[in-house]
Amino acid sequence: MINYETTDGKVSFDQKDYLAENTLRMLSIDMIEKAKSGHPGLCLDAAPMAYVLWNYHLKTSPHHPSWINRDRFVLSVGHGSALLYSLLHMSGYAVGLDDLKQFRQLGSLTPGHPEYGHTPGVDATTGPLGQGIGMAVGMALAEEHLAAKYNTAKYNLINHWTYALVGDGDLMEGISQEAINIAGKERLNKLIVLYDSNDVTLDGPLSNGSVENQKNRFEGAGWNYLRVDSGEDLEAINAAINAAKHSNQPTIIEIKTEIGHGSPEAGTNAVHGAALGAENLKATKEFYHWTTTPFAVQQDAYQQFKQGIEQHGEAAYHAWLEMYNDFQRNDPQAAAQFSQEVGPKLDMSQVKLADETIGKEVATRVTSSELLQEISKHNPNFWGGAADLSSSNKTQLKGEGRFSPETPENNNIWFGVREFGEAAALNGITLHGGSRVFGSTFFTFSDYMKAAIRLSALQHLPVTYIFTHDSVAVGEDGPTHEPVEQLAGLRALPNLNVIRPADAHETLGAWQVIAKTTDKPAVLVLSRQKLPLLEQTSAQNVSRGGYVASPAKSEEPDGILIASGSELQLALKVQQALREKQYDVSVVSMPSFELFDAQSQQYKDTVLPPQVDKRISLEMESTFGWAKYTGLKGINLGIDRFGESGKGPEVVQQFGFTVEGVVQAYEKLWEKTE
Amino acid sequence: MINYETTDGKVSFDQKDYLAENTLRMLSIDMIEKAKSGHPGLCLDAAPMAYVLWNYHLKTSPHHPSWINRDRFVLSVGHGSALLYSLLHMSGYAVGLDDLKQFRQLGSLTPGHPEYGHTPGVDATTGPLGQGIGMAVGMALAEEHLAAKYNTAKYNLINHWTYALVGDGDLMEGISQEAINIAGKERLNKLIVLYDSNDVTLDGPLSNGSVENQKNRFEGAGWNYLRVDSGEDLEAINAAINAAKHSNQPTIIEIKTEIGHGSPEAGTNAVHGAALGAENLKATKEFYHWTTTPFAVQQDAYQQFKQGIEQHGEAAYHAWLEMYNDFQRNDPQAAAQFSQEVGPKLDMSQVKLADETIGKEVATRVTSSELLQEISKHNPNFWGGAADLSSSNKTQLKGEGRFSPETPENNNIWFGVREFGEAAALNGITLHGGSRVFGSTFFTFSDYMKAAIRLSALQHLPVTYIFTHDSVAVGEDGPTHEPVEQLAGLRALPNLNVIRPADAHETLGAWQVIAKTTDKPAVLVLSRQKLPLLEQTSAQNVSRGGYVASPAKSEEPDGILIASGSELQLALKVQQALREKQYDVSVVSMPSFELFDAQSQQYKDTVLPPQVDKRISLEMESTFGWAKYTGLKGINLGIDRFGESGKGPEVVQQFGFTVEGVVQAYEKLWEKTE
Repeated sequence: MINYETTDGKVSFDQKDYLAENTLRMLSIDMIEKAKSGHPGLCLDAAPMAYVLWNYHLKTSPHHPSWINRDRFVLSVGHGSALLYSLLHMSGYAVGLDDLKQFRQLGSLTPGHPEYGHTPGVDATTGPLGQGIGMAVGMALAEEHLAAKYNTAKYNLINHWTYALVGDGDLMEGISQEAINIAGKERLNKLIVLYDSNDVTLDGPLSNGSVENQKNRFEGAGWNYLRVDSGEDLEAINAAINAAKHSNQPTIIEIKTEIGHGSPEAGTNAVHGAALGAENLKATKEFYHWTTTPFAVQQDAYQQFKQGIEQHGEAAYHAWLEMYNDFQRNDPQAAAQFSQEVGPKLDMSQVKLADETIGKEVATRVTSSELLQEISKHNPNFWGGAADLSSSNKTQLKGEGRFSPETPENNNIWFGVREFGEAAALNGITLHGGSRVFGSTFFTFSDYMKAAIRLSALQHLPVTYIFTHDSVAVGEDGPTHEPVEQLAGLRALPNLNVIRPADAHETLGAWQVIAKTTDKPAVLVLSRQKLPLLEQTSAQNVSRGGYVASPAKSEEPDGILIASGSELQLALKVQQALREKQYDVSVVSMPSFELFDAQSQQYKDTVLPPQVDKRISLEMESTFGWAKYTGLKGINLGIDRFGESGKGPEVVQQFGFTVEGVVQAYEKLWEKTE
Repeated sequence: MINYETTDGKVSFDQKDYLAENTLRMLSIDMIEKAKSGHPGLCLDAAPMAYVLWNYHLKTSPHHPSWINRDRFVLSVGHGSALLYSLLHMSGYAVGLDDLKQFRQLGSLTPGHPEYGHTPGVDATTGPLGQGIGMAVGMALAEEHLAAKYNTAKYNLINHWTYALVGDGDLMEGISQEAINIAGKERLNKLIVLYDSNDVTLDGPLSNGSVENQKNRFEGAGWNYLRVDSGEDLEAINAAINAAKHSNQPTIIEIKTEIGHGSPEAGTNAVHGAALGAENLKATKEFYHWTTTPFAVQQDAYQQFKQGIEQHGEAAYHAWLEMYNDFQRNDPQAAAQFSQEVGPKLDMSQVKLADETIGKEVATRVTSSELLQEISKHNPNFWGGAADLSSSNKTQLKGEGRFSPETPENNNIWFGVREFGEAAALNGITLHGGSRVFGSTFFTFSDYMKAAIRLSALQHLPVTYIFTHDSVAVGEDGPTHEPVEQLAGLRALPNLNVIRPADAHETLGAWQVIAKTTDKPAVLVLSRQKLPLLEQTSAQNVSRGGYVASPAKSEEPDGILIASGSELQLALKVQQALREKQYDVSVVSMPSFELFDAQSQQYKDTVLPPQVDKRISLEMESTFGWAKYTGLKGINLGIDRFGESGKGPEVVQQFGFTVEGVVQAYEKLWEKTE
């Protein structure tokens, strides 16, 4: 075994280390060359730091890649995936040489960017820059929180490091600033970031795009900043990681490297994002005194990793397991609460509405808030926060304090006005596993975090986004604060449940769906304004996405009104008004397109009988997307322009969301036919 | 006249100044109280800094609010709109007391957040935090650029300051970090930011959400950092602004204030975002020794502003105008190039395709690149940049150098990996006026800047977004880099032209539409892969959004294939294949939903005859939104899941975008009927 736990952490690196790190380099460029696609520059310059970290520090079990107490590693520079796959292969993960040879090919284990849930050992899907470090912050938050919650003097159940490898591009993205401020504020000292500082980006020298002083910036955000002058200096990298472990702040280690080190185009952007080509590949291999045979790995290199990460990881895993089994025996109650699942189900069995008086007017954001309190009471692993809008979003867990460096066991996270950082952290917390988490902001500002919601969906993470102030009914704050196109944009996102409940019944139903869903995120779209509890709605129907809330009197309706959220009550009033005019329509509540689309054709035809073509959709957002339920002959009532500032009810009225307005529209449908 | 141009810039402030600043405060809280909605905290604490800036520094002409050489003022803290409207009213803009009394009411001149183009004197629409400072950076970029381009020893046509007022919330948003780094890198020393540092945000004390050291951060980004210990100290604020004017870097002045100063709840978040209420309003007015009469303004206060900003601004405007007229007389050619318009039209009269060989394969990103070069040649006011992807987006203007502090006349902007900062800067550049600008990134990463694209559309700014790598055909980079839902999300955004051209003809047509559109932004969606030049397409038809590219043989087609972008060539092949099976379909090219929807019903019915219900849409993105053209009986071929990593053509094939796949789908349409 490599002895990496000497008291001072010092290591004397030798030939075997250089062999191993260069194996990573050569495998990476061979993969890229074979695929004729990939990013060799970073693989060549960051291999030494990755090697030191993986083989001398990272405590993971290659044979148990989802062990909850493993150290986490996020390759924030996801385009360096070849390096990560080389590491996984060499470390004993279930990624074979044949998989490396299939790099970037359809259906392979080794796609262009690392994908969580697809390749064993990949802790996060990365590639969209800046989000990797954001997710690492979330993982470190989760570690701190779960450790505070579950560790005892005897059982150190959660006690691991979170590492990220970032590049110049990550640190230019604004989200990285949000992320590092969250980490600095919470003093997440178990987070260690290696910064591959190669001063080159896709378009050329970094200096063309940035003159930022990272030391100033990170220290300003409450971080410990360390610097290593050469990325080839294994001792210095190792020493810096050891030093980082003694900091009471998160640490960034800026490691100066040369992009594409050893290749003829080293130090330039030419080596960033394309295969080296036969000639440069040959020259690079000569530089490293390497055989030209592609994918050649010496046994000594394997041995080096086996003695390092693999043996240490397995030993650590088994020691932990023993402790965990002991914990289960001694404190079964605590063990039952402690969850090793990524996104455990929420127990909703005792969560009910406090007041079921029909007609009672409550904003869905308020009902959701009441439910949050109940869910929190019965689910100790449930937590979340807001981007400085908890007072408006109503997402504070009232019995619980604020998560802080002094009270990391608390369940309310203050993300600050950092929506994107919030969402990336939610992804990281969920990737870490062991809890269920939510975040919130105004629905319009979901735009700020859209790219992270996409990564929730792509990674199958059951993050819950609570978005309030869901329409022009917001009123006075005006068009900047009134969502219009957000519903359409999010409904088009794959693997995401968007739910816009009409009242308290449906808000409960939405949470019931969220509670049992563990493989995708949810977006909960809630009203600022009060909405009456309707007798026609039900919680359990929400899981079907759409349902007949109020049928027509006759078996086949004259027409169908389809509405979501706050517009359902209007649809029901219109139904009454139309009855007086001898029209017999049904009213369909459609809280979720995604859930409805997943139903059987038979069910869908019951709700929207194909022969009925007089259909109107009502929703105070963009009509985009509604035609799939109303067809070419239907009418979509919505708001296909920006909102306005004014009193909420006046704004709503001006956009025609009145009984008279909808009745007129319906009568137009008949005129068309006649 | 107030003498604010003494050599040392020192001012002795007196009772009239205090009267004037308190008038701003009292008007603001009266407006909010009357509306029972608004944000008094900021208005009360930032009135002094705003007063000093406006009355002693800001050179604008209240009677000529769109004068191109005015100083710009961006209220990045848009929720403090009442303060801005008070300033506009007092300064002599066409905003009357009656308008102030209609604060936040439907149709008023004084909406909840400042709206550009709606209220005279409002230089930017703000409210979504962080974007104000981002737009201010764009304005300062434009100032620097146009000054370098047009100023001569004799004619200082462009020479003004850009000011922004920001708050704690702005500076937590990641975009602010992107913006300040762009400004620091370009050494935009004519940008001066006043930071209302009141240490309180919506949810409570700032310290709960942030521990950031702004001095460190801004200095790290290449800024000049100044601090004023008390926001009540007019002399110190004035001195700091004077000092900022001598810096060779952009300056931030952190001014320590007390939120809601003078109100009973001063210093707490209770005073942030709700009207004070009768009792606290009374107490606040007592604190300021003010009459309780709402909207009472003393003549001395008006006089103070008249002698200050109004007279100085008018004088400056007329002096400039005289110079400008002289310039026009002396150098009519240069004057013809110099544009005072916000978004001047582009001259496309000499812009043609270099090669019109039918069948020639060129990626639309490459064709667009060739057109960019031509447009640039004939339009000196055309410039733009990329978020470190110009090599991939092909958006470099080749005859032009890089914009830099040393060469600000150059037309290629290096935004760095800062998509959101890029888009906000594009908005600011366009708001400034005098040029047309574009920005670029991969289409997937349009997510990162979505919130700023929204502000382009809301502000009617003709910004051009060039997004390349537009589908799963991207291939190897995999799902993180393959757009799926982006088209739907942007199509749902009001007042935006999304154009996805099928080949070089349509790419030219797209640019022709963009060139003549001056009241809305455009999103140009381009392929990474090569596409053949089709004989069935045409440039001029793009302006109609959709058109029959290849008609059926008979007058009434059996069915319609509707496609956009790279899928049009496939649709044409399918048409041939279907002919062999005796199906006679037409093929519609649909480069832009928005442009098509704006056509007459008659035209639309020619393209999509209502009686033909066998319709198939083909587009390698989410099908969301297509049903409005295909109806309940049509089929939408698209990709309603995330993409995959693999060779581009293999990925495309796997998603069924083959002749056989579409032919099968079409035959299914017939099975359904029969």
